[in-house]
Amino acid sequence: MAPSTGNGKIVGDVEHEARAIGVIGLGAMGMGVACSLKVAGLDVVGCDLSEHARAEFEAVGGRCVATPQVLGEQCDVVLVVVVNAAQVEAVLFEPASGQAQGGADTAMGSLVDRLGPGALVIQCATVAPAFAEALGQRLAQAGVDMLDAPISGGAAKASRGELSVMASGRPEAFAKAEPALAAMAATVHRLGDVPGPGSSVKLVNQHLAGVHIAAAAEAMALGLSMGIEPTKLYEVITQSAGNSWMFENRVPHILKGDYTPLSAVDIFVKDLNIVHDTGRHKKLAMPVAASALQQFTAASGMGLGREDDAAVVKVYAALAGLTLPAAHDSVHAAGGANDEEYT
Amino acid sequence: MAPSTGNGKIVGDVEHEARAIGVIGLGAMGMGVACSLKVAGLDVVGCDLSEHARAEFEAVGGRCVATPQVLGEQCDVVLVVVVNAAQVEAVLFEPASGQAQGGADTAMGSLVDRLGPGALVIQCATVAPAFAEALGQRLAQAGVDMLDAPISGGAAKASRGELSVMASGRPEAFAKAEPALAAMAATVHRLGDVPGPGSSVKLVNQHLAGVHIAAAAEAMALGLSMGIEPTKLYEVITQSAGNSWMFENRVPHILKGDYTPLSAVDIFVKDLNIVHDTGRHKKLAMPVAASALQQFTAASGMGLGREDDAAVVKVYAALAGLTLPAAHDSVHAAGGANDEEYT
Repeated sequence: MAPSTGNGKIVGDVEHEARAIGVIGLGAMGMGVACSLKVAGLDVVGCDLSEHARAEFEAVGGRCVATPQVLGEQCDVVLVVVVNAAQVEAVLFEPASGQAQGGADTAMGSLVDRLGPGALVIQCATVAPAFAEALGQRLAQAGVDMLDAPISGGAAKASRGELSVMASGRPEAFAKAEPALAAMAATVHRLGDVPGPGSSVKLVNQHLAGVHIAAAAEAMALGLSMGIEPTKLYEVITQSAGNSWMFENRVPHILKGDYTPLSAVDIFVKDLNIVHDTGRHKKLAMPVAASALQQFTAASGMGLGREDDAAVVKVYAALAGLTLPAAHDSVHAAGGANDEEYT
Repeated sequence: MAPSTGNGKIVGDVEHEARAIGVIGLGAMGMGVACSLKVAGLDVVGCDLSEHARAEFEAVGGRCVATPQVLGEQCDVVLVVVVNAAQVEAVLFEPASGQAQGGADTAMGSLVDRLGPGALVIQCATVAPAFAEALGQRLAQAGVDMLDAPISGGAAKASRGELSVMASGRPEAFAKAEPALAAMAATVHRLGDVPGPGSSVKLVNQHLAGVHIAAAAEAMALGLSMGIEPTKLYEVITQSAGNSWMFENRVPHILKGDYTPLSAVDIFVKDLNIVHDTGRHKKLAMPVAASALQQFTAASGMGLGREDDAAVVKVYAALAGLTLPAAHDSVHAAGGANDEEYT
């Protein structure tokens, strides 16, 4: 091991040293990924702009740095577990001096600048396939390999190392990512030899997930408008051909009147806008997803953007004068549902 | 048993005699129901306008009559397994003289006229809840009880006596229906004490089923537009949060290029129009179902109304210039899918 200074920097020629695996973004998903890697015995360095998030990882024995640039010095595999393309762009390419993170070395350059040749970025955010493809090319120009690897499964599965990964990239990228993937995922779908297809398949999943949540809310509103007892309706539909993973998972939030955000309305505003943009680019009209997007947009317009995505049902309730189950009705709500979020 | 004439008519005072159970409509679902009842040892009389359908039931040892009015003389429990409200109306209330069924006794009156007090109609079609509710009242005025009992599960489950029934009606109606329900259904959901709620819950199921089929087609089109191999996409989505019963069941038809109608496009044009009409009546805007309805309407406009409902994908293909898997590609299609239709 190279000698390490007190502030966590490794000095000297480190290109051929054993390097840590970095996890940027210690939110609900990233925290679970970082912990899974640590449990698997890997040398993990966490990074988040939020001091609170860093303290949380350190409280379970994790090691943290405050900026992606510092992290770049210690790692040659970096998992980027952030929310959107803008954040991916920022953590990879913004030089330290461009950020208000006082104390960072302004001469340090960006994370990508600090990663040596042969390093690997595992990009886990839901982004436009075109962005993922271009990102792979930009990183390649910097001598950095990329695995396009959006994740799915929710925070609980993330913390248990049981995520699904929809991945594409060069065989060398898969090989280098193997220890991390083995620690964080129950299933790794290999979808191609270049960045792009991983994000494409994730986008199709998000299309369906978003439509199914909006449809679940709309269907429950239809049932309420006809006077059907919602818990009974849930029981019948989950045994019938109208069922979906999302109906089964999200409707219990409506039955309990509990809109604590496991995955927020604004996540689907974002993801269905990526669907929309991709459709525009491909000249593929997708009116069903477009309608669902408008309902999530309306929910966000009602001030519900940070509530659980099942809160899209409040759009229907507000427009049709329906009374939704209240939180105190929760003892009557159906039990046994899988309460894990999905992002 | 009352003496029976050669033409199947029972003569004399038959009100207190043992009576048969009638099944009107020997299509994919009704044939399965009729056979299930027969296998269970019940005395079944089938009825269909189609001579071919009657011959099919007779070929497996079934007994048939040509008109609902004749059937009404022999039964005090009648299952109506037809496609829509207009057909329910016709089979129950049209007098024989009003139909071009040569040979029927013009003095016979309608099926309902022939059913004695205490008889039971089990209505299995997908109809508007308001229609079902009103039908119950009209039948009650004629001294006939009604179980509102839409069915679900597809022809294969119908033939095995494993349907799901979404039923509502008086406890006496459930009691009288019990032998038939036990023979035809794996699950009977009891949804209320009057006709109406059964159809309401079925309508919510059809909302979701229709939206999910259109969403599945749209999502597969999105994947194709991005160059994703469709069989691989199916494999990933069915293991992910974007899955639905309909995605899993219908996408194999797209992968095989096989649009043999198990359940036809026009069924969802019909059912989503009932959703639309109900929403109009309740002043509930349902933009997601509305978009799905437009896609099925477009498919029907393309001349695909009698193809399998998965053919809604052809709307997307036609508009975006996508190439769908052809029938001869079937050896490459994913196997193991449940190929049962759903109506």
